[in-house]
Amino acid sequence: MELSTKPLSGMRQLYPADMRVESFIVEKIRSVAALYGFEEYDAPTLEPVELFLAKSGSELVLEQSYCFPDRGGRQLVLRPELTPSLARMIAASPELRLPVRWTSFPLCFRYERPQRGRVREFRQFNCDILGVDGIAADVEILLVLDRIVRSFGPPKGSWAIRMSSRTLASEFLEALGVDGGVHPAAFAVIDRKAKLPPEEWTAWAAEKLGGDFDAVRRFAACEGLGDPLLEQKLRGRQSLLDMRSLVETLGNAGVESISFDPCIVRGLDYYTGTVFELMDTGGENRRAVCGGGRYDNLVGLFGGKPMTGIGFGLGILTLKLFLETYGVLPADILSSRPPDVFVAVFSSSERDAAFAVSESMRTAGLAVEMDIEGRSMGRQFSMAARLGARFVAVIGPDEVASGTVTLKDMERGAQQTLPTASAVSSIVTETSG
Amino acid sequence: MELSTKPLSGMRQLYPADMRVESFIVEKIRSVAALYGFEEYDAPTLEPVELFLAKSGSELVLEQSYCFPDRGGRQLVLRPELTPSLARMIAASPELRLPVRWTSFPLCFRYERPQRGRVREFRQFNCDILGVDGIAADVEILLVLDRIVRSFGPPKGSWAIRMSSRTLASEFLEALGVDGGVHPAAFAVIDRKAKLPPEEWTAWAAEKLGGDFDAVRRFAACEGLGDPLLEQKLRGRQSLLDMRSLVETLGNAGVESISFDPCIVRGLDYYTGTVFELMDTGGENRRAVCGGGRYDNLVGLFGGKPMTGIGFGLGILTLKLFLETYGVLPADILSSRPPDVFVAVFSSSERDAAFAVSESMRTAGLAVEMDIEGRSMGRQFSMAARLGARFVAVIGPDEVASGTVTLKDMERGAQQTLPTASAVSSIVTETSG
Repeated sequence: MELSTKPLSGMRQLYPADMRVESFIVEKIRSVAALYGFEEYDAPTLEPVELFLAKSGSELVLEQSYCFPDRGGRQLVLRPELTPSLARMIAASPELRLPVRWTSFPLCFRYERPQRGRVREFRQFNCDILGVDGIAADVEILLVLDRIVRSFGPPKGSWAIRMSSRTLASEFLEALGVDGGVHPAAFAVIDRKAKLPPEEWTAWAAEKLGGDFDAVRRFAACEGLGDPLLEQKLRGRQSLLDMRSLVETLGNAGVESISFDPCIVRGLDYYTGTVFELMDTGGENRRAVCGGGRYDNLVGLFGGKPMTGIGFGLGILTLKLFLETYGVLPADILSSRPPDVFVAVFSSSERDAAFAVSESMRTAGLAVEMDIEGRSMGRQFSMAARLGARFVAVIGPDEVASGTVTLKDMERGAQQTLPTASAVSSIVTETSG
Repeated sequence: MELSTKPLSGMRQLYPADMRVESFIVEKIRSVAALYGFEEYDAPTLEPVELFLAKSGSELVLEQSYCFPDRGGRQLVLRPELTPSLARMIAASPELRLPVRWTSFPLCFRYERPQRGRVREFRQFNCDILGVDGIAADVEILLVLDRIVRSFGPPKGSWAIRMSSRTLASEFLEALGVDGGVHPAAFAVIDRKAKLPPEEWTAWAAEKLGGDFDAVRRFAACEGLGDPLLEQKLRGRQSLLDMRSLVETLGNAGVESISFDPCIVRGLDYYTGTVFELMDTGGENRRAVCGGGRYDNLVGLFGGKPMTGIGFGLGILTLKLFLETYGVLPADILSSRPPDVFVAVFSSSERDAAFAVSESMRTAGLAVEMDIEGRSMGRQFSMAARLGARFVAVIGPDEVASGTVTLKDMERGAQQTLPTASAVSSIVTETSG
């Protein structure tokens, strides 16, 4: 039987060059999150289906996730997102120091048709603050997100963070005459406005909303916090004051990327207050790179004390595609890190001695590649050059007999024969600078 | 509906304190592997079941794995191990530079009854060299494993690496009169010798092997490379010469932990040559922390050019339990990293200014926690002390008015009011030392 060389469609399979890019992105995000005191956690990949059915939205779980029964007939799911698991971990630990500032890099799964930027298995960055009711937590979450994007150096105008609030949106719809019962359908319509061609959206939305479509269209046409209709309908409401205050505080903290956009509502059922998206605004890929929001009723689902929370999920692959679009990933992450030393072995008679030399170099902290294939000296030198090794250490019969190493500095061309210990310290000195 | 606060049994759920331990172990392994020029990759979590049915052994896949059909009826499996996926990736890339030295930290899944050290979802370290036929690759793989264990500093006598060879074992069994057809059963019996009480093993093995049991018992009683029976039966055979040469080379390279043990055979069907285990030998937990071996026929399953390989999988949780048994995990990884600065906010009127100060500190590379809960100054100072913050920066009305920060050095007790920029550079100087 011959097996296929292809993985299942949409699965995450990373060769070292791809892995270096992912690791570069992950490490940069990690270092930014550390500036804000975030701690890392992880939750199970496999969860009971009820966890997501409760508040994520049944479409996500039943139509877009990998679900299957275990041997006892219990329905399991490969997590499509992390937030419900986070809420459970918080609910199970009433003694946690507040506020909780937690991050994670989970693998998540969606059973959708694969296309560019949409895959079935993906790594995500999750960042959440729990236990703070006021907008200060919203400010801090948006500061982290803004700094993460800026840390990669994408050009101005290529991205923006757009935000709104579910509370404000509900009150605005209500004031425009749309009944509470219609709000979920209205949010679904608003959420898709930027994703469909205008005529298509209008036709679909009019059919879906009937008599309420006109009000929803007026809502969706709102042009920001200065829009007279918004002021007229929500004057003095806490939701509007909070949104203004949030925009102002972020502005004072130096954030230029964030603005109010009533069409941001997000698709997950559990969002309650602030919702936001990071958008690629520069080119053809006008897509959401990241989404998040406040979920004040999620922790309470597990009994015990309720707790408010806000956070976001950022797809690493989506971010990578965004960064590639603007050419801001550094070129040197595409090649592997060169070894400090390539140990060239004259013949199999010197191999034991070469292993011993290599090991003493590694004990000194040097990255060493040694020939283990028995290649000719010429091919070993070519390999060392291809790898970009700074030094080649040759171990031949004379070297073994005298306990020395013939060291060639590939950068300067110089060559000398030294006692092994001296060679090691010489390389350490040259490479640690 | 109230949801359970418990994850599914045996799943990996790591609170920050547990995550720090896992990350510490992962980072140490990563830094050792880098000394040998290994590169990281990753493969899909979800695989077609045929991939593992081919050579991993059907018991592992059909009885001990999570299998389920996708919507098209194709049988999928949550990977129980990584090696077959690695083999596929290699087979799909004939242009790879050889030898391949690859590592990965996959999440793997086994559908078994959870018990201490045996869980259903676990992180593993995989380390492989492909494309080298001779024992030099075996030497290098064992050198990495030995150095990884030593890097954690477990006491002498608490661990050992035991190895044998499937080829040698087959030839030895043959020479003792055991037919090739009986070898799989004989290996299963030998594999369990150390895992069962002697009488229980004898009874079970005798029943399973019938007339061949006596020969298998003689095999399993072999006491090492100096055993006269081994010498008598395999004198001059390449398998015996190779094993002697491997032990000698490793000894010359300074490895003290490795010895020959004919009872090491490993459970996976694809092993062909050298097989080995890292054993906890010190206390009650005489268990395998890690296992590996040579799999020279795995890449060839995918058509194209065959390629030899050798590698191992090391369970991070199993390693953690081993390190905890001997108390060698550093105590300071259990607490979170303290922030450089705690920014204390006098009242909500100063919050915007405090956000701006915190942001300028983060831009300078400082880890900052700012009060976002509106606590009293007293409680903010207690929190700063509990977090272990080196500095507290107080932002009150006077500071806002004058563009200053009142900085308290929590280590020395000194306090002074400085312009914000000076405060930032002063903290950078004090904390970068």
